[in-house]
Amino acid sequence: MKMIIAIIRDNDNDPVTQGLISSGFRVTRIASTGGFLRRGSTTLIIGVSEEKLDEAIQVIKTNTSTPEDANMKRATLFVLNVEHFAQI
Amino acid sequence: MKMIIAIIRDNDNDPVTQGLISSGFRVTRIASTGGFLRRGSTTLIIGVSEEKLDEAIQVIKTNTSTPEDANMKRATLFVLNVEHFAQI
Amino acid sequence: MKMIIAIIRDNDNDPVTQGLISSGFRVTRIASTGGFLRRGSTTLIIGVSEEKLDEAIQVIKTNTSTPEDANMKRATLFVLNVEHFAQI
Repeated sequence: MKMIIAIIRDNDNDPVTQGLISSGFRVTRIASTGGFLRRGSTTLIIGVSEEKLDEAIQVIKTNTSTPEDANMKRATLFVLNVEHFAQI
Repeated sequence: MKMIIAIIRDNDNDPVTQGLISSGFRVTRIASTGGFLRRGSTTLIIGVSEEKLDEAIQVIKTNTSTPEDANMKRATLFVLNVEHFAQI
Repeated sequence: MKMIIAIIRDNDNDPVTQGLISSGFRVTRIASTGGFLRRGSTTLIIGVSEEKLDEAIQVIKTNTSTPEDANMKRATLFVLNVEHFAQI
């Protein structure tokens, strides 16, 4: 099990979340801010099996728009190892 | 040292947090939303020593209510390894 | 690549964030609450290369104020291993 922590721009929140849910992923959304200008961002927590990791990243990629500012990125992704996962 | 990231329903926020604090755990709470219906949820960050891990999970279990919707779970738990922990 | 999850007091949010950005670190800020009294806190997510880890922690230390309450800490820091990092 892996955890993706994805930081995306607010604009992309709905398409990314819908895309992930449609593909069967579970997403938790957290409001965040980032960078110099304190732009609003959304931090997503996505639990994913190792074999689905690339698919989840691809869904995020497909559903983020190209930033107007060429210096900005669509998304920042961290993949962490999950030692134990449970739904109780 | 381990980190539990627990996603619980808003209703259970107070009993779970109080339960954890009463048992000597330190909790950080973050407002979040999850799932199709964008239900409000709470994301808890709990730093815990390895030997206290099961106890912390048990406290969460004990203090979450049974969801009305039988398809819902009480809580989603991710346990991550913490390489370094410091209070400064 | 490492991820620092730093929980700081709200008062220290601006100096810590500015300090980190000035030193070239990227920070994502999340509003949180912690402890018995539900004091407002800020949870920072900082992606950092292993060789910059100590510098980032030092910047946090330098930019947090001494709590009035001697029982409180300036900051709680968790360092996690990042298996994969991408900006897309």
